[in-house]
Amino acid sequence: MDAFFNSRTVAVVGVSDSPDNLSRSIVQNLHEFSFDGIIYQVGPRGGNAFGRRIHRSVSDIPDAVDLAVVLVPARFVPGVLEECGQKGIRRVIIESAGFGEYGPEGVALQKQVLDIARRHGIRFIGPNGIGVANFKNGLVVPFARLKDVFRRGRVSILSQSGGVGLSYLNVLASENLGVSKFVSIGNKLDINECDLLEYLNGDPETDIIVMYLEGISDGRRLMDIARRTGKPILLHKSNIGSLAREIAQSHTASLSGDDAVVTAALAQVGIARFDDADTLVNYLKILPLPRLRGNRLAIISRSGGHAVMAADACEKSGFELAPFPEEFLRSIEKHFRASVIRLTNPLDLGDLFDFDMYVRIIEQTLRLPQVDGVVFLHTYIAGMEGERSQALFRRIEELTFQVGKPVAICVATDHEELNVLRKTLPHPVFTAVEDVIHALSLVRDFHHDARPEPRMPDWPIDRGTVRAILDRALSENRSLLLPEALAVLRAARIPVADFVEARSRGELEQALAKIDGPAAVKLSSAKLSHKSDLGGVQLNVRAADAPATWEAMAGVARRAGDENFSLVVQPMISSAREVILGIKRDPNFGPVILVGLGGVFVEVFRDAAMRVVPCEEQEIDAMIRSLKSYPLLKGVRGQAPRDVGAIKQALVALGQLAIAFPEISELDVNPLMVFTEGKGAKAVDCRVVLKK
Amino acid sequence: MDAFFNSRTVAVVGVSDSPDNLSRSIVQNLHEFSFDGIIYQVGPRGGNAFGRRIHRSVSDIPDAVDLAVVLVPARFVPGVLEECGQKGIRRVIIESAGFGEYGPEGVALQKQVLDIARRHGIRFIGPNGIGVANFKNGLVVPFARLKDVFRRGRVSILSQSGGVGLSYLNVLASENLGVSKFVSIGNKLDINECDLLEYLNGDPETDIIVMYLEGISDGRRLMDIARRTGKPILLHKSNIGSLAREIAQSHTASLSGDDAVVTAALAQVGIARFDDADTLVNYLKILPLPRLRGNRLAIISRSGGHAVMAADACEKSGFELAPFPEEFLRSIEKHFRASVIRLTNPLDLGDLFDFDMYVRIIEQTLRLPQVDGVVFLHTYIAGMEGERSQALFRRIEELTFQVGKPVAICVATDHEELNVLRKTLPHPVFTAVEDVIHALSLVRDFHHDARPEPRMPDWPIDRGTVRAILDRALSENRSLLLPEALAVLRAARIPVADFVEARSRGELEQALAKIDGPAAVKLSSAKLSHKSDLGGVQLNVRAADAPATWEAMAGVARRAGDENFSLVVQPMISSAREVILGIKRDPNFGPVILVGLGGVFVEVFRDAAMRVVPCEEQEIDAMIRSLKSYPLLKGVRGQAPRDVGAIKQALVALGQLAIAFPEISELDVNPLMVFTEGKGAKAVDCRVVLKK
Repeated sequence: MDAFFNSRTVAVVGVSDSPDNLSRSIVQNLHEFSFDGIIYQVGPRGGNAFGRRIHRSVSDIPDAVDLAVVLVPARFVPGVLEECGQKGIRRVIIESAGFGEYGPEGVALQKQVLDIARRHGIRFIGPNGIGVANFKNGLVVPFARLKDVFRRGRVSILSQSGGVGLSYLNVLASENLGVSKFVSIGNKLDINECDLLEYLNGDPETDIIVMYLEGISDGRRLMDIARRTGKPILLHKSNIGSLAREIAQSHTASLSGDDAVVTAALAQVGIARFDDADTLVNYLKILPLPRLRGNRLAIISRSGGHAVMAADACEKSGFELAPFPEEFLRSIEKHFRASVIRLTNPLDLGDLFDFDMYVRIIEQTLRLPQVDGVVFLHTYIAGMEGERSQALFRRIEELTFQVGKPVAICVATDHEELNVLRKTLPHPVFTAVEDVIHALSLVRDFHHDARPEPRMPDWPIDRGTVRAILDRALSENRSLLLPEALAVLRAARIPVADFVEARSRGELEQALAKIDGPAAVKLSSAKLSHKSDLGGVQLNVRAADAPATWEAMAGVARRAGDENFSLVVQPMISSAREVILGIKRDPNFGPVILVGLGGVFVEVFRDAAMRVVPCEEQEIDAMIRSLKSYPLLKGVRGQAPRDVGAIKQALVALGQLAIAFPEISELDVNPLMVFTEGKGAKAVDCRVVLKK
Repeated sequence: MDAFFNSRTVAVVGVSDSPDNLSRSIVQNLHEFSFDGIIYQVGPRGGNAFGRRIHRSVSDIPDAVDLAVVLVPARFVPGVLEECGQKGIRRVIIESAGFGEYGPEGVALQKQVLDIARRHGIRFIGPNGIGVANFKNGLVVPFARLKDVFRRGRVSILSQSGGVGLSYLNVLASENLGVSKFVSIGNKLDINECDLLEYLNGDPETDIIVMYLEGISDGRRLMDIARRTGKPILLHKSNIGSLAREIAQSHTASLSGDDAVVTAALAQVGIARFDDADTLVNYLKILPLPRLRGNRLAIISRSGGHAVMAADACEKSGFELAPFPEEFLRSIEKHFRASVIRLTNPLDLGDLFDFDMYVRIIEQTLRLPQVDGVVFLHTYIAGMEGERSQALFRRIEELTFQVGKPVAICVATDHEELNVLRKTLPHPVFTAVEDVIHALSLVRDFHHDARPEPRMPDWPIDRGTVRAILDRALSENRSLLLPEALAVLRAARIPVADFVEARSRGELEQALAKIDGPAAVKLSSAKLSHKSDLGGVQLNVRAADAPATWEAMAGVARRAGDENFSLVVQPMISSAREVILGIKRDPNFGPVILVGLGGVFVEVFRDAAMRVVPCEEQEIDAMIRSLKSYPLLKGVRGQAPRDVGAIKQALVALGQLAIAFPEISELDVNPLMVFTEGKGAKAVDCRVVLKK
């Protein structure tokens, strides 16, 4: 992989002497960034460019070539690749468009290209991307011309789209944030984001990895790599829904899966998902500071108004303002000229203009045990206080690393001064109150340490029984019948409501007679998967209702064309909270478990949580707590709390099932009746769909 | 009011020859912005500054003075004001701090200042603000020194806090957005935001008004002014909650009321509320374009990736992407070089580099009847396409005003080029995809036309009955009893569930006997306002339960120390959706009506809506529709829709009650039982609290 970023000899293929030839820009970029290797120009029409000749073919190059950068019309790419292979070039960047993103012809071309590459052992990036840039050695080959306005640093960008990658480069430049490497992978026909993420993870010149993806090639592998790395990974996964899908396909042939699964999966492995440039900048400004280890901030401000705004922002993002001890306030009070301000947190510096005093106050505040981080809001007029302010910022930065807690600086001054600060300060400052609080909330909620392979809590399930049930249904090429589905839950040691199966009116009468109180009667038929919508469920059935109920159900079955149906009879369960549990499989991330509250919450408010399995016990706790409707489980306004432990066990069981039996493509427990704390829960209905 | 912005002769009071004297900055600002009037300097120690003498007192000024700007320690302000009065100065700006925001002494000072001002007929701005700036005539008197980096324009800023006002000025400057007037009002002891809003509303040099407030002085008046003006008003109302309150008080003596009422009130009169600089900039960039009259956008992009991001953003903010007609697509398809892109909306320009063609495509798209607005995403390298791009932007701007639909331009290019664009383009461009879509969503949801005084729909209520009930309770200095509260609802023609009142066990037995089916029994006692929490409500009571119920209720009443209680007996109502309605009074905005769904929705999810009354019928419709739980009223998944009309009528009735009877400080209908469509609704419980 390293050859793509550190080749010494590069061939640029597609160069001509016409002025609007795009490959020329590639050569110009290599010049602009003073590439420290050797450049060869190749183009069928020959001629010369930039004072050097254009070879008519790769084979004409009198020298060994490490890397070929190809920008020719798509139909010529296979030929060029064949030449490269024969020339012994093993690394190629294909920037041409017109492949899979275009249509059938493009797809055929892609297959050709892959075959040739395989045959010659060529690894390549693209097509339909703008290639790589290593700002350290000047190997900068996008066909879009760049000016060297970039500060060298330790952030690397891995983008599927060239345009978005470039605009993120521009964002870094405009904030003067340092950049290390850049790569745009386009259709990622051969090398994909995982290959490059592995490389950047191991790259000593990269500390932070910024990614833009429209589609994820291998969700599981992405998770594994992210889990192993301790470097912050910031991912903009776009293409979230129906509106974007069509253009995304026409553009980089990306399929968008279920976006909620993506969000869950990324959070589980500590990838920070973002979707706008402001958030990206906030991350890049705050990540270099010492980590925020708690939720209690101190606000120190020269402007009372900004202090109020900061307090509002803290309220919105759930920060606490640490109360200042009395003696601390008294110790600083004496420094104020006319003490016109009541001292509190946020601390309004009012008429205190002594910069040394600022540093002392900030240090004392930072060292308070009840303070996890400080926000310093500094309003000043460049003409009067510019230099002193810049010196102040440097001293504050030393301080923050000495103490090991973050001091986030937010500056309100004029535009020119901000540009000076961007160019001169070792660390970036914030320029809007809401941004500095937002940035702190981002890192408060984001831990990117490497983490171990997750282990599902142990939960032995009776695999033999499940296996037998699944095999039978698979052999008959059908989904599970209700009694089978309930049996699977039992085998997974999820408590199930008692039920009996009735195959005749007589059996139904007996069953109802045995139950004291009302019963639920459900139609079990291989022909009906959504029985309740079709009248296949009757509640509060009494013994006397047996004949009518039998007739009704038989009618439903008949209309579905099923003669050998059966009925499942259960005692009604009341005074329980209905919870919905499930298993689904994501094409990208594999097995996922879900939970939500029954009734309107999942269906109307889409209030559900999911995790990719396997996942640790605390992830399951977190997923239940993350429900907006969680207060209803915890018990609100004197209501008794529900048995959350039972929900958790059921989710563990489903996780184990999902892992052990890949042929389960969908499973819904709808509902699980959850009783008050300590009383457990019971599944009363279940639907299992198997992979064909 | 105009004198504050257009005085010809200004006295700056508090000037000394010491270098860190803040009043000197005021004089320097007047010089920096070449004030076209006459400046006098005043300071007790005399001397000279800036080559002109410092008069020892206002009375020494040999000339008539229109405006005095005072920055002296708080305790000297009354003396200076007295001098100003005697000198005949009728307009004063007090920038000194140390008044009401500080404590008791400050409050006393404020009273003194007000008395002197009244006596001399002086109107003043401040104290504790940084005064005014008129960028047209150079009357710029903040004590913070400013450099003249401001483009003259038609946006005026009215800010309570000087610091925030300045940082918004800086934001405008950094985007090179034009500014007209600036004023910071601090403690607004005399002149408040409403006075200045009236002025700016009438100011021919102001098109857009930007406000920052920590507290609202007169909500009703603010609403009236906003309703009358057709100019966009953008308000950052900070100080939203507990964290900000303390600092806000210490800083500009602002009390924060119920923030939800503020939000509702502002929306009702077309004031756009914002709370961050990005949103402000988005408003200021989009407002000058032709208004967006629908929800259907077309995205035209040079970069497929940005198109995908734009589609994501549209999805998030509820925009539709207008489908392009086939013949339209065919008509542009032929212009593409190698047609490597499938054409759709978003439209990826792919390998089309012809700028004239861009204009033609944008115009054709803009003229499509199914397109309400166009977003043009233009990625370019300044070095190659800078000038052509700038020309392109100008042509697009002509186009947007010709056709009368917005074309919002979003540019991805390098930092230097963006600065050039800011300086040279007549209209600002956007620089982030998410911003351009956000801006369009802001104006889609924002109508700032002047609107008539709202009229509540007619709903005659039996005032006599209500009056009698209230007077009786007031004379006995108590809240209403349950039967009285229900009678008030009846008098307001809100349907109430049948009930009988029982004052003895016997009456209770008779009452229960008359009802077939179970009953609800509620304790009515002057001593209990929250009866249900104390066991004062029993549901599903049957005739046989009478003795036990009586005993229980009597016990509750006895414990509350009430011997002459009564019981309200109602037939149980089932199969209805519970809705909560209410009246409350906001100290700032007056009477407010509220609605929310009963059960967990209001209590756990805070899902409620409110409007300041009077309000129009469609506001009440909108308020009901705005509930997150509205789908439950509309009817979800085959559930029958509820009688929303009945809820609406009840809200109208409450609005009329709230207006007609100011002594009602709180009223809750909890719950209103709402039946299926056409079946109406019934109030079953009500609580009314009266103003003492």
